Order: sequence, then structure tokens, then C-alpha cells
Amino acid sequence: MTLPGWIAVDWGTSNLRVWAMTSGGEVLIERSSDKGMGTLEPDQFEAAFMDLAGDLLGTGRMTVVVCGMAGARGGWCEAGYVAVPAVPGRGAATRVVTRDPRLDVTILPGLSQADPPDVMRGEETQIAGVLAQFPEIDGVICLPGTHTKWVRVADGRVRTFRTFMTGELFALLSRHSILRQGMDDDWSAEAFAGGLTDGLADPAGLSAALFGLRARGLLQAPHAGETRARLSGLLLGLELAGARPFWDGGKVIVVGDTRALDLYVKLSDLAAEIHFVAAREMTLRGLISAHTELTGGSE
Amino acid sequence: MTLPGWIAVDWGTSNLRVWAMTSGGEVLIERSSDKGMGTLEPDQFEAAFMDLAGDLLGTGRMTVVVCGMAGARGGWCEAGYVAVPAVPGRGAATRVVTRDPRLDVTILPGLSQADPPDVMRGEETQIAGVLAQFPEIDGVICLPGTHTKWVRVADGRVRTFRTFMTGELFALLSRHSILRQGMDDDWSAEAFAGGLTDGLADPAGLSAALFGLRARGLLQAPHAGETRARLSGLLLGLELAGARPFWDGGKVIVVGDTRALDLYVKLSDLAAEIHFVAAREMTLRGLISAHTELTGGSE
Repeated sequence: MTLPGWIAVDWGTSNLRVWAMTSGGEVLIERSSDKGMGTLEPDQFEAAFMDLAGDLLGTGRMTVVVCGMAGARGGWCEAGYVAVPAVPGRGAATRVVTRDPRLDVTILPGLSQADPPDVMRGEETQIAGVLAQFPEIDGVICLPGTHTKWVRVADGRVRTFRTFMTGELFALLSRHSILRQGMDDDWSAEAFAGGLTDGLADPAGLSAALFGLRARGLLQAPHAGETRARLSGLLLGLELAGARPFWDGGKVIVVGDTRALDLYVKLSDLAAEIHFVAAREMTLRGLISAHTELTGGSE
Repeated sequence: MTLPGWIAVDWGTSNLRVWAMTSGGEVLIERSSDKGMGTLEPDQFEAAFMDLAGDLLGTGRMTVVVCGMAGARGGWCEAGYVAVPAVPGRGAATRVVTRDPRLDVTILPGLSQADPPDVMRGEETQIAGVLAQFPEIDGVICLPGTHTKWVRVADGRVRTFRTFMTGELFALLSRHSILRQGMDDDWSAEAFAGGLTDGLADPAGLSAALFGLRARGLLQAPHAGETRARLSGLLLGLELAGARPFWDGGKVIVVGDTRALDLYVKLSDLAAEIHFVAAREMTLRGLISAHTELTGGSE
């Protein structure tokens, strides 16, 4: 086996993903596990990493560059934030003290904003990836997820951003609320579109619209997938209503998977210009930029 | 012991409350337990009632009038809905088949609305109580709770209503979301008022304001009670923004306990006229009206 030049790591709340890289920035091996930050105590991170990637190490020192929630309080090692406006992926990275002397681990800092208060951790690396691919961008980046980020970038910097709890609200309401009764696993594209239109047009009506889903379930006989899809649409509509200053009339790059593309396709009718890029590629590109920065090399 | 003339029952999701009544509508005894509808299977309701009130029965038949979630699907016996516009507390009540031959149990129907779809069960009896006390009311009744009801009444009828999931959203977010981290049991009246103002002014910003609470917790050091109270204020602000057509410029009667009075006091600045009445009394008064109606008597 070719020994990697370094290892790139995206360590989120739910998943751990590693890439064994050549010194030239090519991927040798990609692996992932469900040992997310949310499942681990601080002293379990090194073992979880070694379980997944230990065989990729040789006898010498190995540079490991980590982004994501592994740098949160309660993670592997708290990595701090850089306050916006800021170049994403720059700023004081945090060195982790490891038991295995071969490991040379650096965790990248997140971004913070004082007013309105906001934070991100992991997405800044995806944004760095977008900026590496589109260095001239003056516009908005949307990063859908449990906590969706809307980010204004210009001159290679993040100027301002806001986080919307859309994904978490959907999970809470579909799993723990009264709406879970009568919810199936199907999906109605029409109900999603209707919910999105209503949520965007009347954000103040959200709380009543949510209970309306329950009442529809009792009074009518919703088709399979209607409740779930309309719930998702209402919450995304609320997000788009709140994020209007970001997308209104501008250019938006959505960083996501094919699922995000399906959900955010409505943005094509709203924003002046929209592009979709793959989250995995942007994360990797951002980690490569950070590695180049850290080691003083050039790509 | 004086044998009751009949027994009034308010059987909600969380609690069971019974009043032993004289035939003249006076309360002999009041009792309650935590055997709410949510804790019982259908075949457990009669035993739960007898545990709390069995000793109040004599050898003859006893009329028992029940309102609330005991009439829901999965309750003691499903009691249906009467579609609005409707006189609350009227319409086909449901007789329950009981094992104990002394029991003569009637469950009152809820109210339903076709468009927008909505339902209530229990609150219609409180509304009947309000109408018994203020028969001439032409205005709005607000019934705060897990699922807060805003109700327009005129000519002794419920014309239209909407349900807001304010209480359930607060419970979900404070117990199950990322906001539970760093939430204490204190209360900041100032943070509540600020959240209410912000939620009312910018309902579209709710989802971002929620994550902002988390970010404040990470970046600043919120005072005791701030996160919890601001969350409550934001959600009530969202409700008041959605319920604006109900309260704007009109007369509102709020049916609640002293806690609801504290939360809804801001309405005094918004609505033209506001009155608070106690939920327990309105429930009892509505049950007495229903009993009078059912037995063909007069108060």
C-alpha cells in the first residue's frame, strides 16, 4: 500500500469520514463510519479514529487535518471560532495532544458572529472549498442540513451568516410531536410544494399550519406521504421567508447532496441565479486548502 | 355523605378532574388525579374513574357528564365533532357502555372546522362556560395551552377558530432540541418580553432566532433564565403574529390560570379590550350548562 501523504477528516455529529491523501492532493482511499461526535466522549475520539484509519499510518508522523463537530466543546478538543468577517479555513487551528506519537492532528476553527449571535463548525470548510472553486464569487452560499446555513461571501471572505433550524425542527416534529401520529414514510411532491408555498407566503401562520396537519389527519384522509411532505415544505418555506434577504435577486450556490437539490429546487424560481455543488467535494476541497495553508505549501 | 345529584368530569390528556355536584349546580366535592387520557388504554378509563369517584356513587344510576380528550380516538369512547358554526356544548353527545350498571356516562362532542382544517376537544366546554357568563359576547376567546385556541364567537356561536402549537413547540424545543443544552429552570421576564417583541415583529425569522439562542449560549454567558424565557417569548410572539386577525382591535377574553395571565399580559397593549377568566370555573360552568341541556332541566 502507498503510504498517504496526509489524512483529511470530516468529523460531524453523526458521521466520521476520512480520506487518505497523496501529498499532491489526490484521494487514495475514502472511508466512513457512524462514530459521529454525538456518540463519543472526548477520550474516545483517538480510538475511533484509529479504528477507522490506524492501518493507514506508517512508522513516522502523519499529518491529520480535521474539520467539524470534533472541534466543539465535548468533542476531541475544543477548537474555537474565528469571528466574521473572515477568510474561512484560516485562523488559529488547534493541535490535539494524542497518545499515539505518530499522530499530528490539527482541528480547524469554526466561524462565529457576534450580532446576531451565530456559529458554524464544519460548514466553514465547505465554504472554503466553494471559494477555492469559485474564487471570484460575490453572492450567497446555502448549506442545507440539520442546521442550515445561509452565508454571504465577497472578496474571498464570509461577511455574515444565519443558521436556520429547519432540519432539527423537522426531526423534532415528525418524531416527537403529536404530528408523528398518522405520519408514514411516503413522500408527496405536490404536498411538499404546497407546504413550501404556504410557509413562504405566511410564516406567521406556521404554528397554526402545523396543528392543521394534525386536524387534516383526523378530519380527512390524507394520501400517503402528504403529512410528512407538507411538514417539510412548511418548514422550508419558513426558512426561505427568513432567508429572503440572502436569496432575493441574487446568486446562490447550494452545497448539498441530491436530496438537498430536490428540496431547494424551488429556489430556482426565486433567486436570480442558482448553482448546486456537491457537499462531499466541497468539504474535501476545503480540507485540501487548509492542509496547503497549514503546511505552507501550494496546491 | 350527601349523595351527588350528578358528577362533572374534565378528562384531559394529562389530568382527570371530577366534581360531585348537587342537582342545583353546587359543588359538593372536587378531586383530581394524574390519570390523564394520555396514560390510559380505552379499557382502563372506567377503572380510573371508579378509583377516583367510585365512593361517590350510591346504589342507583348516576349521571356523569364528561368533556375533553376522553372523547378522542383511543380515549374512553370516541365522541365525534360538531362542525362550526355551532353552539358549543350542543350536538350529539355520546353514551358510553359501562361495566358498572350504576354509571350513566355521556361524553360531550368536540368542535371541528373544515377549512382551514382544525379541531378542539374540551375547550368547547370552556367556551360554553364563557358564553353562559357573557351571553352577549361578540368577540374573541383565547384558550392558552399545549395547543392554544383562538376562537371567534358571535350570537352565542363559535364562528371560526385556529389552533397554535405554542405549548407543544416550547416543550419539544426545551426538552428535545439542541437548545436544552444550557437551559436552566429560571425565568427572565425581560428576556421573555424581548423574545415576544422579536417573534411578533419578525415571524419569518423564528427558525434563525431559535438557533441564535444556542449561539448566544456558546458565545456569551446568558444570565439565568434568559434562554428559556426568550424561547417562550419567541414562540408566543409567533402565535400572536399568526393570531393577529383575531385580536387586532377587538375584545379578547383569555381563559387560563395565573400562569397564562402572566404570559398573555402583553395582549393588554395590543387588543382593544382584554379580560381574564379562570379556566377551571369556565370548564365547570360549561359542564353544568351541558348537564342542564342533557337532562332537559333549567338552571
